[in-house]
Amino acid sequence: MASDERDETDERGGAETRPAKAQKSEQTRTLILQTALRLFQERGYDKTTMRAIAKEAGVSVGNAYYYFAGKEHLVQGFYDRIGAEHGAAARAVLDKETDLETRLAGVLTAWLDIAAPYHEFAAQFFKNAADPESPLSPFSAESQPAREAAIALHREVLTGSKAKIPAELEDILPELMWLSQMGLVLYWVFDRSPERERSRRLAARGARLTNRGVALARFRVLRPLVHEVHELFKDFLPGMAETATARKRS
Amino acid sequence: MASDERDETDERGGAETRPAKAQKSEQTRTLILQTALRLFQERGYDKTTMRAIAKEAGVSVGNAYYYFAGKEHLVQGFYDRIGAEHGAAARAVLDKETDLETRLAGVLTAWLDIAAPYHEFAAQFFKNAADPESPLSPFSAESQPAREAAIALHREVLTGSKAKIPAELEDILPELMWLSQMGLVLYWVFDRSPERERSRRLAARGARLTNRGVALARFRVLRPLVHEVHELFKDFLPGMAETATARKRS
Repeated sequence: MASDERDETDERGGAETRPAKAQKSEQTRTLILQTALRLFQERGYDKTTMRAIAKEAGVSVGNAYYYFAGKEHLVQGFYDRIGAEHGAAARAVLDKETDLETRLAGVLTAWLDIAAPYHEFAAQFFKNAADPESPLSPFSAESQPAREAAIALHREVLTGSKAKIPAELEDILPELMWLSQMGLVLYWVFDRSPERERSRRLAARGARLTNRGVALARFRVLRPLVHEVHELFKDFLPGMAETATARKRS
Repeated sequence: MASDERDETDERGGAETRPAKAQKSEQTRTLILQTALRLFQERGYDKTTMRAIAKEAGVSVGNAYYYFAGKEHLVQGFYDRIGAEHGAAARAVLDKETDLETRLAGVLTAWLDIAAPYHEFAAQFFKNAADPESPLSPFSAESQPAREAAIALHREVLTGSKAKIPAELEDILPELMWLSQMGLVLYWVFDRSPERERSRRLAARGARLTNRGVALARFRVLRPLVHEVHELFKDFLPGMAETATARKRS
């Protein structure tokens, strides 16, 4: 959506060259997003209006709406940004380590590092995102791109490791790993320990547990249970069915 | 605590007989609790004061504080009440069925029935209870009695069934079953389907999954993983360690 809008800007471009125009457009987009996040933190999500964001960013209200159709879209922009930063930060461990536990612990810890500046925002924002039917929920249709990217990262954690994964679980394990990351995020939101040290320990413990669970998946008798857990999440969380459908299409 | 206070009332009793006095005391307590719940629903938890509750209930502020030391205590009173009603409603299935899946599905569905009138309250109250460090969280020290009672019910689900439970898992399975019930409660809070029909299906599916999981526990290779999952919850959720300690003492 956002990229379509940027294309449109490019086509209207006159004197400026396409790349210069696109770069300026991206800068404005970033400025609006950063301003919104600051105001969300300072005033609360519910109390911040698009008008106030535009004013603080020094752009017209029309311009703000041009880049983001509403507050929800700003949050999606925030999710996408966090995801992109996380993907980049995770490279260090994904390109080097082959042990599943080390890879997963590294990726989860990288997320805690990236998200650290937004902890306060997350705590006050939580009640908006906790409702699975809210567009701001990680399980919503609107969050599908951010969710896909995060699941793809977990797929890479798995496939790039030396762990042996039964073919029948290759697709669903990354989704379950992402779900358990959502559990970590929920824990982190309420974590008041210094430097979120408890969340960091939970990330390490969760990685160890996942590694053991994956090792047990070599026992055929267990696999139906893994499928059933996955089916349950797919049937009851709105976004998980779409994610599975998208995976089958690709 | 509340029962100590009632004893004190009894000792002060003059003309009235002990049972009559105790009965009246219990009626006042119930009146204050019901009034509080109605105001929480109508005005929101945060905006409701003890003063307003006392006024609406037609008792003095001092009297309201005599029964409940504060709003948090009213919520604990609510938890205890829901728990007691749930325990009574669960008897129908626990006294009759021996199949683990049927017992668990029945107990979970009984909870959904009992909690139905409070759904609206739960949705707006959620943000207060979601923080594991809030006294209102199901994982708090303050919620320990309500939590203990709920776990005891799950213990009965298990021990009264014909399922074979390895001795080493007898203590921890009821705690894990209660944890998954908390997952159901979280789902129910946000469930807008008519009659919370989706939560009812989730209860049934969860019971089936638990039954299969317990059946797999006969494989020794799996048991360390169950222990590790339990250890993880115990180490990271404040109340679970206390619950385990209390169990060992008893």
